[in-house]
Amino acid sequence: MSSAQDQLEAYRTSIDNLDAILVHALAERFKVTQSVGRLKAEYNMPASDKAREARQIDRLRSLAHQSQLDPEFAEKFLNFIVAEVIQHHEKIRKS
Amino acid sequence: MSSAQDQLEAYRTSIDNLDAILVHALAERFKVTQSVGRLKAEYNMPASDKAREARQIDRLRSLAHQSQLDPEFAEKFLNFIVAEVIQHHEKIRKS
Repeated sequence: MSSAQDQLEAYRTSIDNLDAILVHALAERFKVTQSVGRLKAEYNMPASDKAREARQIDRLRSLAHQSQLDPEFAEKFLNFIVAEVIQHHEKIRKS
Repeated sequence: MSSAQDQLEAYRTSIDNLDAILVHALAERFKVTQSVGRLKAEYNMPASDKAREARQIDRLRSLAHQSQLDPEFAEKFLNFIVAEVIQHHEKIRKS
């Protein structure tokens, strides 16, 4: 049992490292989307761009396929992030 | 307007790069959690560990704070991932 526990701890260390990558990449992504939000507000560009969003979904599904991530999950993940981005953009427009 | 459009394209390239990092880190994270699921099933270890989950939330909130990501969002993100992991673990137990 002790070696199973050791193996579990080793896996958890990897999960913690990957979570640190994810949090930092997400932080950086929101910095960029906030810049996009300010740019769009300043130049009165449309808030959403359906063609861009369709390209992003296709690309993410393809990257997911390559890296053996469930493409359905990749799309769900993008939708989860985009919902947060839209909330941020609404705050920028109101401020 | 053309330079605003150029700036938008530059931001979008950064977003695409960050999305590639996110997808690959997520793919790797699910590989590890699937190994955890198999290990726990094999050694009959409990599927959930509330103390571990509380430590993960605290750590993610702290990493979020350091990287200027909204800690509430970081916690929502972890819950989103964990919901997917639980689905995977249930599949492993059934298989």
